[in-house]
Amino acid sequence: MAERTALSTLETGTMSDLSTLGQALGDVRDSDVVALFGRTGSRRRAILFRLLPKERALAVFESLEPGLATELLGSLRDERVSQLIEELDPDDRVTLFDELPANVTKKLLQGLSARERELTATLLGFPAGSVGRRMSPEYIKVLETMTAAEALDHIRAAGHDAETLYFLPVAGENRVVVGAIELRDLLLAHPQAVVGDLMHEPILISVGDPEEEAARRVVDADVIATAVVDSEGRLVGIFTFDDAAAILAAAEAEDAARTGGAEPLRQPYLSARLLAVVRSRVVWLFVLVGASTLTVAVQDVFAPTLEQSLALALFIPMLIGAGGNIGSQAATTITRALATKEVRPRDLFRVLFRELRVGMLLGGTLGLVGFVPAMLLVGPDIALVLLFTVTAIGTLAAAVGGAIPLGARAARVDPAIVSAPFISTFVDATGLVIYFLIAKAVLGI
Amino acid sequence: MAERTALSTLETGTMSDLSTLGQALGDVRDSDVVALFGRTGSRRRAILFRLLPKERALAVFESLEPGLATELLGSLRDERVSQLIEELDPDDRVTLFDELPANVTKKLLQGLSARERELTATLLGFPAGSVGRRMSPEYIKVLETMTAAEALDHIRAAGHDAETLYFLPVAGENRVVVGAIELRDLLLAHPQAVVGDLMHEPILISVGDPEEEAARRVVDADVIATAVVDSEGRLVGIFTFDDAAAILAAAEAEDAARTGGAEPLRQPYLSARLLAVVRSRVVWLFVLVGASTLTVAVQDVFAPTLEQSLALALFIPMLIGAGGNIGSQAATTITRALATKEVRPRDLFRVLFRELRVGMLLGGTLGLVGFVPAMLLVGPDIALVLLFTVTAIGTLAAAVGGAIPLGARAARVDPAIVSAPFISTFVDATGLVIYFLIAKAVLGI
Repeated sequence: MAERTALSTLETGTMSDLSTLGQALGDVRDSDVVALFGRTGSRRRAILFRLLPKERALAVFESLEPGLATELLGSLRDERVSQLIEELDPDDRVTLFDELPANVTKKLLQGLSARERELTATLLGFPAGSVGRRMSPEYIKVLETMTAAEALDHIRAAGHDAETLYFLPVAGENRVVVGAIELRDLLLAHPQAVVGDLMHEPILISVGDPEEEAARRVVDADVIATAVVDSEGRLVGIFTFDDAAAILAAAEAEDAARTGGAEPLRQPYLSARLLAVVRSRVVWLFVLVGASTLTVAVQDVFAPTLEQSLALALFIPMLIGAGGNIGSQAATTITRALATKEVRPRDLFRVLFRELRVGMLLGGTLGLVGFVPAMLLVGPDIALVLLFTVTAIGTLAAAVGGAIPLGARAARVDPAIVSAPFISTFVDATGLVIYFLIAKAVLGI
Repeated sequence: MAERTALSTLETGTMSDLSTLGQALGDVRDSDVVALFGRTGSRRRAILFRLLPKERALAVFESLEPGLATELLGSLRDERVSQLIEELDPDDRVTLFDELPANVTKKLLQGLSARERELTATLLGFPAGSVGRRMSPEYIKVLETMTAAEALDHIRAAGHDAETLYFLPVAGENRVVVGAIELRDLLLAHPQAVVGDLMHEPILISVGDPEEEAARRVVDADVIATAVVDSEGRLVGIFTFDDAAAILAAAEAEDAARTGGAEPLRQPYLSARLLAVVRSRVVWLFVLVGASTLTVAVQDVFAPTLEQSLALALFIPMLIGAGGNIGSQAATTITRALATKEVRPRDLFRVLFRELRVGMLLGGTLGLVGFVPAMLLVGPDIALVLLFTVTAIGTLAAAVGGAIPLGARAARVDPAIVSAPFISTFVDATGLVIYFLIAKAVLGI
């Protein structure tokens, strides 16, 4: 109850009463503060953040979405910014740096202690989008010749700065990874058992691998972490399950936004400026509406047909709507299957063959169910036109919806960009052509 | 290289040559087998599964999507099914049982050993969809009076069956949770330090909490696990990060499918039967197309207007397309924000006020940019109609797209169901009304 009062004070209380706000902060959890920051304006956020004790400020800062974190930095004194950046884990720091302009990054890098600067510079040396920038360079490795007891002593001695103690790569000569072991296995083993006998084969991730691909492997394998190695198989870092899950979640947020025809906001909706919301949508909207001017051209070409049978116009929104829906269903399914690696670009023909049949079945079923009502409403001729059209459009829409995301992936374009709304627009124009051609043929006009 | 050959043998090799298939299985990882099962037909899947050594078969089975796992069970002898089910972790077993018909579950439950049956029955006693069914009842608890050394000894002795050793709830009298500690902190502490001094405040999840909500809390807090307690605060299980991440991933897959107007397949796309794909789409398609017959009615009402100015017909697909896109953008953004708890139903008015302005800005910008080309194409009167219409439709579409998912959530309907395609369809019909009314007013017809 005290918590709820505190939350509402923090969200709507007067901003000049700093002592009340500070007290309210004491009554809520760090995760509540993070959620709150996603609902408030930037000024309130900056004030509340400055009221947090240092330890809590760091915990909150680490959990903020990148868009919010960078904005918050702009409201703090340089000295405070340096402190915060110094205390971040190297991989979190690099994730933040990826959001900032190069000159800011450079300045922040110079402000770091020698050790942290070196760790950070190493990660920044790997290409953008590679797992090298997301791994942790602060790991504990054990040797295959150690006994379980020795390994545990080593972990106790070296563990204070490590990202995790629970996953331990096993290194041989020249830091080459020869295995991996979990703390669980060390702890449950006989103290004199040798690491080389206890370890298992590791999942190895190359430091240059794309982050999303690496993340998918870690999450699919359901392991605490994996070893990250360079081209000679030498250990350079570890990549943890929670970081992998966060990368996949961000990728899914991006896919979800683009499937809806917008760019991701990269910060909580209610905290974003109105123009930032407009900006995230306006570009794709113009592209889509620009493409849909094609429908104007098609209708212009077939205007004489429409003049002869105005009844045809009645069904246009419904027909292209059906095509858009069937296309969206296929596109969404395939975009998702690509994201989870269930389907790959080389499966194009399998997908195409499936979707052609699925689309024909869906369109044909719709057409047959609608035939009798249409016949009663506008007569057998137009009902027949509708049946043929919806079957053809359904087949086309599903095939296009299935094929385009695969083509996009093959061309290294994000499939989510060209999925649902893009395909609806494409199907609108071609669907109209199909409709008018079938109408001309059946009605003899 | 050997791995790649083996994979292609497994995917396309002749199914009668069991020894070659068996050898090829030896050359690939468990995760590759899981991926392969998502690409093959059910017969090949059943044969390959039976060729796997028992240990590997269990690992593969645990990683299969529920739809595949249940199908596979149908192809195995009863005895083999019992073995597999016996070896699953209790929470994985219950997840599988949730997919099966009640009479099958009952039979499988009777085949379990006494200990496993009891653990499973406990989980099955919690309501469907609650975290009680997804938690692990095999945890290790420590007492606040133990020293770190004693706690480690206890973990060594009790750890063999536990789901994790890394998160340890601390129990007081009557199993009431008084804290939590990580193995890391025990290992790095002085051996004589007391658990009560080392432990931190736990995140407590109630056993009846909805699984998705609990999962979101665990992932947001980025903790290895949380304690699950009953209404008296007594420990009943733990809920781990990886299980939470899997629940969120399944929820996102469901949202993604529904945003595209289909039900989730619950198994990999290429492995699903054609009719299963049709079935996942046909219901929503009929609902959407059924709703879109409204557009036929609207056009019928305004047929006289259309007859007087056939030029109006040219722009119908483009206008309703623009409305559909603006509505989809808003719906997708808000559905996602609801899923991540950034926005709640009580934020309705904040969202509505934002989306009204965003929609007006987007529609107005589109209208202004299109005004001059439209004027040149069809003259100033219709250009003006288009400008007014697209602004009005944009405002309406964004507001409806933002509000409907919130309304759905408040009414305990999945917001993803009523998002993009549903809203496009709604905006189609109302958009037409707006268009014709504005046209009548401006053109004076």
